[in-house]
Amino acid sequence: MKTLLAGGTVVNVFTGELERANVLLDGPIIAGVGDYTADEAGAVEDVTGKVICPGFIDGHMHIESTMLLPAELARVSVPHGTTAIVADPHEITNVCGVSGVSFMLDASEGIPLTVYIMLPSCVPATPFDEAGVELGAKQLRPMYVHPRVLGLAEMMNYPGVLAGDPDVMQKLADAKRLGKVIDGHAPLLSGKALDRYIAAGVSDDHECSSFEEARERIRKGQWLMIRQGTAARNLSELLPLFDEPYAQRCLLVTDDRHPADLIAEGHIDNIIRRAVQAGKSAITGIQMATLRAAQCYGLRGVGAVAPGYAADVLVLDDLDTVAVRDVYRAGNKVVEDGRMLPFETPRVREHLWKAARNSFYMELLRAEDFFIEPKGERCRAIRLIEDQLLTQEEIVRIDWTKNNGVDLERDLLKIAVVERHLHTGHRGVGFICGAGMKRGAIASSVSHDSHNLIVMGTNDTDMAAAGNHVLHMGGGCAVVENGQVIAAMPLPIAGLMSAKPAAEVARENEALRAAVHTLGVPQGTELFMTMAFVSLPVIPALKMTTQGLVDVNRQRRVSLYV
Amino acid sequence: MKTLLAGGTVVNVFTGELERANVLLDGPIIAGVGDYTADEAGAVEDVTGKVICPGFIDGHMHIESTMLLPAELARVSVPHGTTAIVADPHEITNVCGVSGVSFMLDASEGIPLTVYIMLPSCVPATPFDEAGVELGAKQLRPMYVHPRVLGLAEMMNYPGVLAGDPDVMQKLADAKRLGKVIDGHAPLLSGKALDRYIAAGVSDDHECSSFEEARERIRKGQWLMIRQGTAARNLSELLPLFDEPYAQRCLLVTDDRHPADLIAEGHIDNIIRRAVQAGKSAITGIQMATLRAAQCYGLRGVGAVAPGYAADVLVLDDLDTVAVRDVYRAGNKVVEDGRMLPFETPRVREHLWKAARNSFYMELLRAEDFFIEPKGERCRAIRLIEDQLLTQEEIVRIDWTKNNGVDLERDLLKIAVVERHLHTGHRGVGFICGAGMKRGAIASSVSHDSHNLIVMGTNDTDMAAAGNHVLHMGGGCAVVENGQVIAAMPLPIAGLMSAKPAAEVARENEALRAAVHTLGVPQGTELFMTMAFVSLPVIPALKMTTQGLVDVNRQRRVSLYV
Repeated sequence: MKTLLAGGTVVNVFTGELERANVLLDGPIIAGVGDYTADEAGAVEDVTGKVICPGFIDGHMHIESTMLLPAELARVSVPHGTTAIVADPHEITNVCGVSGVSFMLDASEGIPLTVYIMLPSCVPATPFDEAGVELGAKQLRPMYVHPRVLGLAEMMNYPGVLAGDPDVMQKLADAKRLGKVIDGHAPLLSGKALDRYIAAGVSDDHECSSFEEARERIRKGQWLMIRQGTAARNLSELLPLFDEPYAQRCLLVTDDRHPADLIAEGHIDNIIRRAVQAGKSAITGIQMATLRAAQCYGLRGVGAVAPGYAADVLVLDDLDTVAVRDVYRAGNKVVEDGRMLPFETPRVREHLWKAARNSFYMELLRAEDFFIEPKGERCRAIRLIEDQLLTQEEIVRIDWTKNNGVDLERDLLKIAVVERHLHTGHRGVGFICGAGMKRGAIASSVSHDSHNLIVMGTNDTDMAAAGNHVLHMGGGCAVVENGQVIAAMPLPIAGLMSAKPAAEVARENEALRAAVHTLGVPQGTELFMTMAFVSLPVIPALKMTTQGLVDVNRQRRVSLYV
Repeated sequence: MKTLLAGGTVVNVFTGELERANVLLDGPIIAGVGDYTADEAGAVEDVTGKVICPGFIDGHMHIESTMLLPAELARVSVPHGTTAIVADPHEITNVCGVSGVSFMLDASEGIPLTVYIMLPSCVPATPFDEAGVELGAKQLRPMYVHPRVLGLAEMMNYPGVLAGDPDVMQKLADAKRLGKVIDGHAPLLSGKALDRYIAAGVSDDHECSSFEEARERIRKGQWLMIRQGTAARNLSELLPLFDEPYAQRCLLVTDDRHPADLIAEGHIDNIIRRAVQAGKSAITGIQMATLRAAQCYGLRGVGAVAPGYAADVLVLDDLDTVAVRDVYRAGNKVVEDGRMLPFETPRVREHLWKAARNSFYMELLRAEDFFIEPKGERCRAIRLIEDQLLTQEEIVRIDWTKNNGVDLERDLLKIAVVERHLHTGHRGVGFICGAGMKRGAIASSVSHDSHNLIVMGTNDTDMAAAGNHVLHMGGGCAVVENGQVIAAMPLPIAGLMSAKPAAEVARENEALRAAVHTLGVPQGTELFMTMAFVSLPVIPALKMTTQGLVDVNRQRRVSLYV
């Protein structure tokens, strides 16, 4: 079927020019741009006064952070003009192994959003982590054959790269041999160390938080991903990259984005819009979101409105608002007047579906599982820092006489991480301060990067109840007060994702946030999000794992007792 | 071995910036650019005051046009800064079939010039041609596995693309399926026909002769190759492309370049130099000759002085003269102070060598082979046009009473094309005017694109003698006067290439040109070059083939007699 988009102004991403021209779509391909007429098409769409541009590509995101299945993500993102994403299924892979990658491929097959996959490079993230699996080069290698697998995902283990760790080097060698892309993740690395990291084959980075950091990487040949997600927001610092000679080496990514933000603010369109509001060119933003992303990943025939390119095309109201009116994908209209047209959610193969839906292998929790045996007076506690994923180590004097050491007046709570993948019974329990919780407990199966069960609370009974509720749901988040579940969000897919639509997930998440505050947690504290990183022994300084505390700076386990 | 290039100014092709920095080469790879010191290297080269840039890439050339083997081409081109070429072995493949591709791969293995190969797409060029072979999609397919094969060479058969010819479409489909590049060749095609051609997967073009033609292609997404060769010289018309937004979509190519020009003027360096003399930026030229070429062909890790990139690096005296002082390839110094360092010429496998060295399958010629039987008074003659490959059809009245129709007073000579690949005895003989030859004859095995034996002369005896001398040499060019060979250039490799060094080939070629003028041909007429295209029934209007005259405009054979 040939469709003519007639009367619009086309954004030429090759030259940055605007051209009044008709666009002829021929099935999944753009036939041409020019003085095509209605006679040449089976259908004509009047887009007079509108702007036509290529569909947007999110160059790096974790679908799991949206808590949505790919089809539900599509239903909320495609109306914002996203027609392709490059996804790193790092979270589900930590839970399900390579089956997690296959799950994501199945779950995104045939949806009106092209989901390219980068193979998770660091599962588990550190040797301190107890993930569901351990993925070596050997396990990753067979996955490269899938046509939507573009390369090796963010190589967070930059110390391993610099040290020449054999399995890390094998992963890099495999990707390079197959002509695949290797994504980077090395915040603040610079100079000669950065040279070594890049020379190992790492071709982009999304962790830059300053212009100088970004410019060094561009000069050294990396593609620079300007990240603006829900938590990490680097756009304002990186605005100078919207000018040449840097712009042509940049793309736009969200990394981690919550469903409420996708609904309220949008996706890649939101980043372009913010750049425009800050005085930058929408055309530059569109070039980054299309042609540059395609170039970064070596995608041919994607990211431009030009003959032979994929007919993934947006109709925008104008360049000032970047408001997406219609979306065509592979030549079919999939968004009309801002509304997603219905499509079928793909079926995931049974064994993959079952594996993802049954990701809890642990015993029911009892209150006494959170009991800490008093062995000394001075203990190491994790101190949360407002608005940061960093924590501090704080030495606290524990009064064991009441409530097994918990002291609400000093804001001293318990934190526990319970192994849930392999039925090991491993369990780390300790103290945390800075959360502000006055009663009850919360629990979640979203706890980076291994996604064991993490529980924080004021008393052991509520902690057990919260943890068990997550277990009963097969994953998710729960808020418990006096033994009662007052809010819960089921995330039964690998303990990370919901099967519900984005709006519902956003509502559940909102209810969850509200419930946290009824426990006394001050407004403004995103406790579930903060807690989700308390288990990641990659970010300093003191973290809790299934086997107890880890001093991240010294990269070693430490005792609870000083 | 680590080598430090210390004290130079580095051209950053990503940003267009110049940076005072040291460059550390680590074996075949660039380790880094920055404040590296002598302590970190095994050897230090002082390049104070010099400019360091990536090695140049010729994005499209026919090695056979240089009449040199790849190793000899390297000996003359690498000192001009060329470290890689993308070659279309179209000529040798017309003679030797896919063995010709293998010959070129063998002959370029391990030389200090990376020879990438595009598979000839149009052998023979037209159905009127009698090439050594006929290459379909099936024959090309297995050749893609070679790591230096980048794609399908210039798709000259654009009518076949537009008409959807099945074998042409299969060739395109194969290249696309394998993620390979498809080079274009479609002069003056524009508008919707160009859209269709590009939409078929053709991603670049090197035939543009005007800025407007080039701009249309860039807007439609093609990479634009700015060609400046020996015959076709498009640089001055295309100079506006050196400015943005076009420059980032352009590369530099020579297409066809004679050895004397390579020696006297240079290669890609010469194009950059000319652009600088015309007021354009050398840095832009260097970007086109390096990063842009790599992007066009999807070459990762080539075309920049940056960590992880191939250590193919030039040391230039300065950016004004683009004078190449030293060349490093894969980290080894291969040119020192402008002089090529010795390297071994690669061995070609015996059966390929033999096939290329024995490319003549025809009988010895006799004078009577050029006799034209008088069947009418009015004949079609080919009229040469000064400085053009185009010819005209001219109706001449033949006086059969003397010299079998040849009439030197009217500048009416004989032209013949003799099949030499398959012993068919096919032979086309007719009349040609505009050459200005007064005595003797010339013959050549370089006659596009099938490279049969072409002979032009004032009398049948000298024509036979010239043709037979080429046959005796196993290929080449000969000038005969009164039965004596007065100049000859042996091209024994497929009848196209010499095995001698560039300087010697250039001298032989010069002697040949001089000898042509002793036959009365006016100075300024490049008769061998012009004659080489008289057999190509792709360029209008009247051409001679092994089976007689072809009217190119009407694409059909025509009789000698009107």
